[in-house]
Amino acid sequence: MARPIIIDCDPGVDDAIAILLALAHPTKLNILGITTVAGNVPLHYTSQNALKICALANRGDIPVYAGCPRPMLRPLFTAADIHGTTGLQGTKLPEPTQSLMVQHAVAFLIDTLQQATEPVTLATLGPLTNVAIALVQAPQIASKIDTIIAMGGAITHGNVTPAAEFNIYVDPHAAQVVFESGIPIKLITLDTTHQVLTTPERLDTFRQLHTPIGDATADLLAHYGTPDIERYGINGAPLHDPCVIAYLLKPELFTFRSTYTTIDTTSPENLGRTVIDWWGRTGKPANTQVAESVKSADIYTLLMESF
Amino acid sequence: MARPIIIDCDPGVDDAIAILLALAHPTKLNILGITTVAGNVPLHYTSQNALKICALANRGDIPVYAGCPRPMLRPLFTAADIHGTTGLQGTKLPEPTQSLMVQHAVAFLIDTLQQATEPVTLATLGPLTNVAIALVQAPQIASKIDTIIAMGGAITHGNVTPAAEFNIYVDPHAAQVVFESGIPIKLITLDTTHQVLTTPERLDTFRQLHTPIGDATADLLAHYGTPDIERYGINGAPLHDPCVIAYLLKPELFTFRSTYTTIDTTSPENLGRTVIDWWGRTGKPANTQVAESVKSADIYTLLMESF
Amino acid sequence: MARPIIIDCDPGVDDAIAILLALAHPTKLNILGITTVAGNVPLHYTSQNALKICALANRGDIPVYAGCPRPMLRPLFTAADIHGTTGLQGTKLPEPTQSLMVQHAVAFLIDTLQQATEPVTLATLGPLTNVAIALVQAPQIASKIDTIIAMGGAITHGNVTPAAEFNIYVDPHAAQVVFESGIPIKLITLDTTHQVLTTPERLDTFRQLHTPIGDATADLLAHYGTPDIERYGINGAPLHDPCVIAYLLKPELFTFRSTYTTIDTTSPENLGRTVIDWWGRTGKPANTQVAESVKSADIYTLLMESF
Amino acid sequence: MARPIIIDCDPGVDDAIAILLALAHPTKLNILGITTVAGNVPLHYTSQNALKICALANRGDIPVYAGCPRPMLRPLFTAADIHGTTGLQGTKLPEPTQSLMVQHAVAFLIDTLQQATEPVTLATLGPLTNVAIALVQAPQIASKIDTIIAMGGAITHGNVTPAAEFNIYVDPHAAQVVFESGIPIKLITLDTTHQVLTTPERLDTFRQLHTPIGDATADLLAHYGTPDIERYGINGAPLHDPCVIAYLLKPELFTFRSTYTTIDTTSPENLGRTVIDWWGRTGKPANTQVAESVKSADIYTLLMESF
Repeated sequence: MARPIIIDCDPGVDDAIAILLALAHPTKLNILGITTVAGNVPLHYTSQNALKICALANRGDIPVYAGCPRPMLRPLFTAADIHGTTGLQGTKLPEPTQSLMVQHAVAFLIDTLQQATEPVTLATLGPLTNVAIALVQAPQIASKIDTIIAMGGAITHGNVTPAAEFNIYVDPHAAQVVFESGIPIKLITLDTTHQVLTTPERLDTFRQLHTPIGDATADLLAHYGTPDIERYGINGAPLHDPCVIAYLLKPELFTFRSTYTTIDTTSPENLGRTVIDWWGRTGKPANTQVAESVKSADIYTLLMESF
Repeated sequence: MARPIIIDCDPGVDDAIAILLALAHPTKLNILGITTVAGNVPLHYTSQNALKICALANRGDIPVYAGCPRPMLRPLFTAADIHGTTGLQGTKLPEPTQSLMVQHAVAFLIDTLQQATEPVTLATLGPLTNVAIALVQAPQIASKIDTIIAMGGAITHGNVTPAAEFNIYVDPHAAQVVFESGIPIKLITLDTTHQVLTTPERLDTFRQLHTPIGDATADLLAHYGTPDIERYGINGAPLHDPCVIAYLLKPELFTFRSTYTTIDTTSPENLGRTVIDWWGRTGKPANTQVAESVKSADIYTLLMESF
Repeated sequence: MARPIIIDCDPGVDDAIAILLALAHPTKLNILGITTVAGNVPLHYTSQNALKICALANRGDIPVYAGCPRPMLRPLFTAADIHGTTGLQGTKLPEPTQSLMVQHAVAFLIDTLQQATEPVTLATLGPLTNVAIALVQAPQIASKIDTIIAMGGAITHGNVTPAAEFNIYVDPHAAQVVFESGIPIKLITLDTTHQVLTTPERLDTFRQLHTPIGDATADLLAHYGTPDIERYGINGAPLHDPCVIAYLLKPELFTFRSTYTTIDTTSPENLGRTVIDWWGRTGKPANTQVAESVKSADIYTLLMESF
Repeated sequence: MARPIIIDCDPGVDDAIAILLALAHPTKLNILGITTVAGNVPLHYTSQNALKICALANRGDIPVYAGCPRPMLRPLFTAADIHGTTGLQGTKLPEPTQSLMVQHAVAFLIDTLQQATEPVTLATLGPLTNVAIALVQAPQIASKIDTIIAMGGAITHGNVTPAAEFNIYVDPHAAQVVFESGIPIKLITLDTTHQVLTTPERLDTFRQLHTPIGDATADLLAHYGTPDIERYGINGAPLHDPCVIAYLLKPELFTFRSTYTTIDTTSPENLGRTVIDWWGRTGKPANTQVAESVKSADIYTLLMESF
């Protein structure tokens, strides 16, 4: 039985690859819908990008719902410097073969979860605004969510500020709503994704697949991020969001540690920091499983085999 | 032409009287709907209370929509000590003659405003959660809102903490979303409502109306708040929310001052304080009209004449 | 028996007048020393100004100690726009007839208080940096302080920001140390001093004294502050610091209310606000007597008679 | 020429060993004085412990000055659970052979630095209260300080809270004063000291020295901290403060990275976190050299050879 999931995302290069990976495994993942949010680029682009990725994978049947165009409280902060103005620069994607759904992503989340007869998994690849807004409106949906597998946060250093990772920094208040919701969370932080590096060799392998998806992946990754030998140890850029889908397909590639995690929503210096109680100093019960290790090479093998 | 309004509220005694006042003026106020929120008491009670008040006024035609059962980020803080467990202790209200609408208050707000052909006025009598959540989901509705007339905030002293008034304190983050929205706001603070005092004499006048609404009003007010001669100067309790409707019916009873207002969302001591730049120290442009004076006796005359 | 006091100040026009008032009453106030701090203007000027004021009053015997040139944590914020670059613009004061003491004001405070055989009163007219630093170094001096009579804070509106009064805003952390110290505090806020207004008529009366101090007072006040009929109700500027000395000389001119007061040291909007629990919402025991009323005309009479 | 240093500390087991290491190298380190502060245990104990350690090393000639008994703003938080009530449980130290100096540590710091004819190095092993209070009183001393070598802070996880290391957590405001002072700082964080682990084998080696200092060291370390194989990878407890002195004696054992560091003084979750801009996200100029690597075995060799 395919696992019912909703992918909440802000594509973005690495979101795109994550979605492609999910679309490649229909027998394992039953994608109820893709919901988009403002993040890497504004909502208009993330929504169009989601449609185009579905078109690239010939999956115009997947419904795509546009969500919140702004964070809960903060002004929108994007990463157009990393992802390009449209979020998917560097390749020519097919035009969408479907329209955006009329329903708002938040209404879709609430309706789908309220009516769900089995628990649904949320794979979140961007700021958590849609999920948080749905939880404030209709807290009872929490009981219908099996797990939230989220890419976000950092144990050591952030990538936007010294303290904060992009997805959490964009909407720290939304993150706090989610982390306080009682929903089981699996958190894949920068400390994990920075081990999943797109080396030039791996890029070549995508290109040698000679498939439209392989080519698009190679093109996108070629324009994404900046290889930084000092930072990452090898000549590559990290692949964040696909880890979430990889976990859903092959959980054995990851190990996790149970911790209490909270979000800093007030500090000028630490706004958006995931405060992870690794050594149990607070005495508070764990509300998160934080990724501890990843089999990086196997992630790329999974991607190759899928594309 | 009656002015189209939506009443967003958490009844509560003074909300109840405000709604009764609005319902008494159908030629002036076209009530598109009443939306309820958790505040004075939990959402279940505020929704039931709204229905019962409509029943008391024989206005089962007014649609009532239940909204958010919790604030955006903070745990729900109620005022059951002031309003009683159900929010409307002390009188026997008729059972509702209508059902709650199925649609969520936030969805109603978004749909109604998006489809509105003329600007709509929001009268907000409780925490601003519903309005803020609607604005995060669909910021474009701001342009369809004529004004928000809000009871909330304090210039000098709060009534929950030294710094904060109840409606803002319950959901300061929602208030901040609203105050940053660019929507014209008229704010009626405690400094104004504390001049609108229910003295024993005024209570008696309600009772002598010998009408169901006059009796209910007298019963409710008899159990509401605590007369505090030291604080209010006379032996009465303040009537907060009816000021909002009174302003809509007789704007000449109030004067306002244009100021920049922001909400403290982070301080342990000042959480929920309405920081009102009365003397223009910040140099920021005004985003609020704050009530400066009120003709208190005329408010009671208006209530008497209406009931 | 004259009451032993230390005047901690940052002259400044109104500090100057306060000091002159204190120096005029040697049988009532035994000034053990004047300590200066950075505030209205930098420390160099406040120290020189204190010396010049002593010279004007022929009291070169009063020892003056320079204190902290900066607040505990924040960068120095001055009020040179109100007081002029040197702090005492607009009049020609005599050159000092004495030198600054070599000892640091903090060391003087600690030594004097540790050796005191009777309780000493502190009259604080500026930021509380010196007192707080002394308390951190030697907390045991608290037991030797009879009372701190402080000009500072605001109940309603601040004069630097919407929330904060100048003395507290400059060093909110120092204020917090003092308010948590357990020392009895009498706090005279802007809400009181804004009732003590230098009208043109009162200015004239100073000038008609035809004394050096009367002339200097008139000259200083003529260049101080901005009359603001809208704000103060009459055509005058408020006289803050002399209220502290006036209280020491004639306590019957003031009434006070016991409250719990704390200082906001973290909020972007409310930094430096004196959070005064006027209505006992926190349940915390009173640590302050906050001025509630003042006989404004009598303050000016006292000044006239003294000069 | 021996390098002039002042050791500011709160002994405490690891402070004790650090001081013993410094006292063992009079030709390299000219200890102008030891200043004590409240931290691991209250000031009374840290001062007595400093005297006893001097006695153990037969160095009754080193002047010891007691400093601040409390942090700048926060209530004192101690680590008696780690160091024992007196701070040096587990061994019998000789009684002091000298008295505490009468002068306050802060006054000693200010006087010594103002009169210094060559730059002085500060080795700080505890909360930074004394140094910060001296800097607020007399900021000009900053120019006389060659470097502050500080044990404090954490890059990844704290040891008091998830975010904060003990020394900084106890007085984050003092730390902020120091990090903003412009004084060159070398910071040795938990991420470094957690590599310097007292294994049972290393403990034995101390004991086999058969010297009073070797015995005391072994006794103290036997009662200090908790070996935690999961956390540290081997069966040992980390040795924090001696790293500071080891650096002064053998700088080649460490490498450092230039970064901008600031202290969180306001966040409920991150209070006292050293926010270290490892990847230059803020664009602010470096104010700190943060230890990046340490030759752990060589530190123990240095200790053995010294004792």
